[in-house]
Amino acid sequence: MADVFEQVVNLCKRRGFIYQSSEIYGGLAATYDYGHLGIELKRNVKEAWWQAMVREREEIVGIETSILMHPEVWVASGHVSEFHDLMVDCKQCRTRYRVDHLPVKDGAPDLSKCPNCGTKDSFTEPRNFNLMFRTMSGAVEATAQELYLRPETAQGAYVDFKLTQQAARLKLPCGIAQMGKSFRNEVTTKSFTFRSREFEQMEMEYFVRPGTQGDWYRYWVDQRLKWFQKIGIRPENIRLRPHEEKELAHYAEGCTDVEYNYPNIGWGELEGIASRTDFDLKAHQTRSGKDLTYFDAETSEKFLPYVVETAVGVDRTVLIALLDAYHEDEVEGEKRTVLRLAPHIAPVKAAILPLQKKEELVALGKELFDKLKKYWNVETDTSGNIGRRYRRQDEIGTPWCFTIDFDSLTDHTVTVRDRDTLQQERLPLDAVAEFIRQRLDVTYTDPVPAPAPAE
Amino acid sequence: MADVFEQVVNLCKRRGFIYQSSEIYGGLAATYDYGHLGIELKRNVKEAWWQAMVREREEIVGIETSILMHPEVWVASGHVSEFHDLMVDCKQCRTRYRVDHLPVKDGAPDLSKCPNCGTKDSFTEPRNFNLMFRTMSGAVEATAQELYLRPETAQGAYVDFKLTQQAARLKLPCGIAQMGKSFRNEVTTKSFTFRSREFEQMEMEYFVRPGTQGDWYRYWVDQRLKWFQKIGIRPENIRLRPHEEKELAHYAEGCTDVEYNYPNIGWGELEGIASRTDFDLKAHQTRSGKDLTYFDAETSEKFLPYVVETAVGVDRTVLIALLDAYHEDEVEGEKRTVLRLAPHIAPVKAAILPLQKKEELVALGKELFDKLKKYWNVETDTSGNIGRRYRRQDEIGTPWCFTIDFDSLTDHTVTVRDRDTLQQERLPLDAVAEFIRQRLDVTYTDPVPAPAPAE
Repeated sequence: MADVFEQVVNLCKRRGFIYQSSEIYGGLAATYDYGHLGIELKRNVKEAWWQAMVREREEIVGIETSILMHPEVWVASGHVSEFHDLMVDCKQCRTRYRVDHLPVKDGAPDLSKCPNCGTKDSFTEPRNFNLMFRTMSGAVEATAQELYLRPETAQGAYVDFKLTQQAARLKLPCGIAQMGKSFRNEVTTKSFTFRSREFEQMEMEYFVRPGTQGDWYRYWVDQRLKWFQKIGIRPENIRLRPHEEKELAHYAEGCTDVEYNYPNIGWGELEGIASRTDFDLKAHQTRSGKDLTYFDAETSEKFLPYVVETAVGVDRTVLIALLDAYHEDEVEGEKRTVLRLAPHIAPVKAAILPLQKKEELVALGKELFDKLKKYWNVETDTSGNIGRRYRRQDEIGTPWCFTIDFDSLTDHTVTVRDRDTLQQERLPLDAVAEFIRQRLDVTYTDPVPAPAPAE
Repeated sequence: MADVFEQVVNLCKRRGFIYQSSEIYGGLAATYDYGHLGIELKRNVKEAWWQAMVREREEIVGIETSILMHPEVWVASGHVSEFHDLMVDCKQCRTRYRVDHLPVKDGAPDLSKCPNCGTKDSFTEPRNFNLMFRTMSGAVEATAQELYLRPETAQGAYVDFKLTQQAARLKLPCGIAQMGKSFRNEVTTKSFTFRSREFEQMEMEYFVRPGTQGDWYRYWVDQRLKWFQKIGIRPENIRLRPHEEKELAHYAEGCTDVEYNYPNIGWGELEGIASRTDFDLKAHQTRSGKDLTYFDAETSEKFLPYVVETAVGVDRTVLIALLDAYHEDEVEGEKRTVLRLAPHIAPVKAAILPLQKKEELVALGKELFDKLKKYWNVETDTSGNIGRRYRRQDEIGTPWCFTIDFDSLTDHTVTVRDRDTLQQERLPLDAVAEFIRQRLDVTYTDPVPAPAPAE
C-alpha cells in the first residue's frame, strides 16, 4: 500500500497537482506549490467547506483576519510560552531529535543512547524551540516591532469575536469561520504535504451558552465526519479517535480527531474538534482589558461564551482526497490510472473531445466550451487518439468526457462517457450544461436546523 | 468628496466589512481584517478575476505558489539588491523621511532643510531600507536559513513556468495566473487598505513569442480596463496612464497603470500592466542554471518567451468597489445610504424578510432560505419594521429583498424589491432562484478568441 503514496506523489508532479516550492533552485524544504490542477482541486475543497460551514448556515459567518497580528495576541493565547518542541542534540554525531519522537522506554522517551550513532549519555539537556516564525516590522530600528507569522487562524476569530458578533447581530449559538495560511517552524516535517511549514487551515469557532457545550461538541464531531463523506472520502478510511484524558490540554473538556488511514503511515490526524471552554476569550479579555462578554437580551445575562472548535488542514484534505481517489484498473485489456474524485471537487469537470482535428468538429467543440466555461473549469483536447485522451482525463479525475463526432454536426448530439462506469450515452448539445449542473448539486446541511441541545 | 472616504471607512467597521487587525490590542499598523461582509465581497472580487482570467480562457491556467520561497529567487529577481526605499533621518528632530516623499526643488528631492523642524543640513546620508520582511526557517541554528516573505506573487509563475507549461501542455501564447498574499515592509502606509504591509495580489504572466509582445500588451490593457467596468466600477472614475520613458524599469518596454479617482487622494494606482521582455525568465535561467526555454514544435525553435504582466491588488479593488458604490439619497423623505454594488460582487445576494414575526411567515422564509443557501450568500431578517430592514440591506448593497406576507401563504408568491429602482413586483416563490441566477450571469471574455497579433 505504501507505493500508492509514491504513485500519488509522482502523479502530482507529472500532471500538475503539487510541486516542491522553488524546484529550479533545488527546492525549499517542507514548502509546496499547487500546480494548475492542484489549485482547482484545492479551490473546490475550500468551496465545499465554505458552503457547508458558512453559506448554508444562518448562524455562522466567515471572516478573514491577517497573518501578522499584534504580538500580545500570542502572549495571551499561550503560544509564546507553550508552543514549542522539546529537543536534544547528540554531542557525538550532532543529530537533533524531538524528545517526543525518541524511542519510548518504561513509558518515557529514552534519553540514554543516541539512536543514530549509538553513543551512551551523549545528549544535551532538553531545550525548547518555539514553533512560531518571527519577523520584524517597521523601518526605524528603535521602534521596529517583533512580530510572529500566525501559527493558527483560530485566534483571529477570538480577537474579532465582539466586533463580528455585533456587526453581524449574532445570537448564541453562533459561529465564526475562516480559511487562511498559517506557519509553523516544524523541526520534523514529513510525508509530502502532510506536515509542511507553510500550510492552509479551515477553522470554525462555535460560541455557545455554558452548559450546552457537550451537545454541540458531539453535534460538530458528527457534522464534520459527514462532510468528509460528502466530499467523497470512503467511510472505511476515516475514523474518530476521542482523545484520552491525559492528552487533553488543561482547559479542554474534550477533543476528537478525525483520522485517515494514510497508505504510508497508517491512521493519522486529519481534523480536530475540541471543546475549549471559555479559555481563549477569557485570556484575551484579561490581557487586552476589553470586555468580550456576550449579552443575552432575553435573559439579561452577561457571560463569556464557551467554544467548540473545528480545525482541519486544507493541504491534508487535498492530499487524502487524492490518496483516496487513486485507483489502477484495467479497461479493454489496458492498464489505466483513474482518480475517482467526487465530481464536485474534481479539478476539471468536463473534457470536450472533437473526434478528429477537423475544422467543423473543433468549431463545434469551441462552441460547447464557450457555453460551459463561465460556470466550470472545462478543457478541450484534440491531440492523440480518443482512447489516449480518455486515459489522460481519467488520470486527473475528470468525471465526464463529451465527444463530438460527425453525427454531432447534423443531429446536435454528443456522446458523454462516464469516468467510473465507462458507460456512454448520447445527449443533445443543449442538455450538456444541465446534465453537469444536476450532478454537481450537493447540500451539506440538513434543512432542519441543529436541534436545540438540552443538557 | 474626501468625506466619502471617511464615510466608507466608518461603514466598513460598523457593518463588518473591514477592521484594523488586532483591534482589542490597540491595532497593528497597516494590517487589516475582513469582517463577515468584507470577506464575501473580497471572495466575489477574486472569483470575478479568476473567472475572467482563468476559467473562461483556454490558454491561461491558475497556480498557487508558496509565500516562503528559496532565497535565491529574490536574488535573481533583483529584489535583494533593488527593492528598497531610500531614506534619511533628521539628526535634530529624528523624523525619518522617504527621500522620494520630500518636497522637490529644481526637479530633485530637497535635502537641504528638514520640513518638520526646519533645521538646515540636518539630514543623515541617504540609506537604503529593503522592503522585504525577513524570517528564519529551521530549528538548528547552524543550518537555519534566512527567508523572505514574498513581496509579490509574480516570481512564483516565473520559477514554475516550465513545470506548468509542460504539465498543462501549454503552447504560446499562454498565461499563468495566481492570487495570494504578499508582504512589504512599507515605511509609509496610508489611506486605509490602499497601502498596507500585508496585502493580496492577483497577477497574471502572459508568455508570448518575442516580436508579438506589443500587440498583447495593448490587448491586456484593454481587457483589464473592461474587467473593472464589468464589476461595476463607473467608467468616469477609471483612466489609463501610460508610464513615461523615464519611469520605466530598464528592462520594461512599456507599462500602463489603470488609475482610480480616489475621493481622498485623487487619481492613484489600481493596476499595472507591463511588457517585461524576457528579463525575469532569463534572470532565473542564469541564476538557477536550469533551462527555461520554450520549444516550439511547429517551427523547431527554442527561445525564452517574452512576458506581459497584469498585476492588481485585491484589497484596492475591494476598496474602490466600496468607494464607487457609496451613495446617499432620499427615499420617501428619509435619507438613506446605499451601496450600488454590481449584483455579482455584492456580499449578500438576497434578503428574505417575513413581514411579521409570525410562525407561518418565518417558516415560509426558512423554506425559501433553504432553497437558495446552497448557491448564494443570503440572509433572513425578522427584526424591526420593513422600512428599517430595507435600509439595513441597502447600506450593505443587497440587490434584492424578498418580502413574505400573508398572501404568500395562499398564493405562493413574494414581493421582490429592487435596491436601485426601488420598484416592487410580485413573483412566484418557485421563480426566485431563477430570477437571481439570470441577473448574476456575467461573461468577461469575448466568445471569439483574442486576435492573433501580427507585428
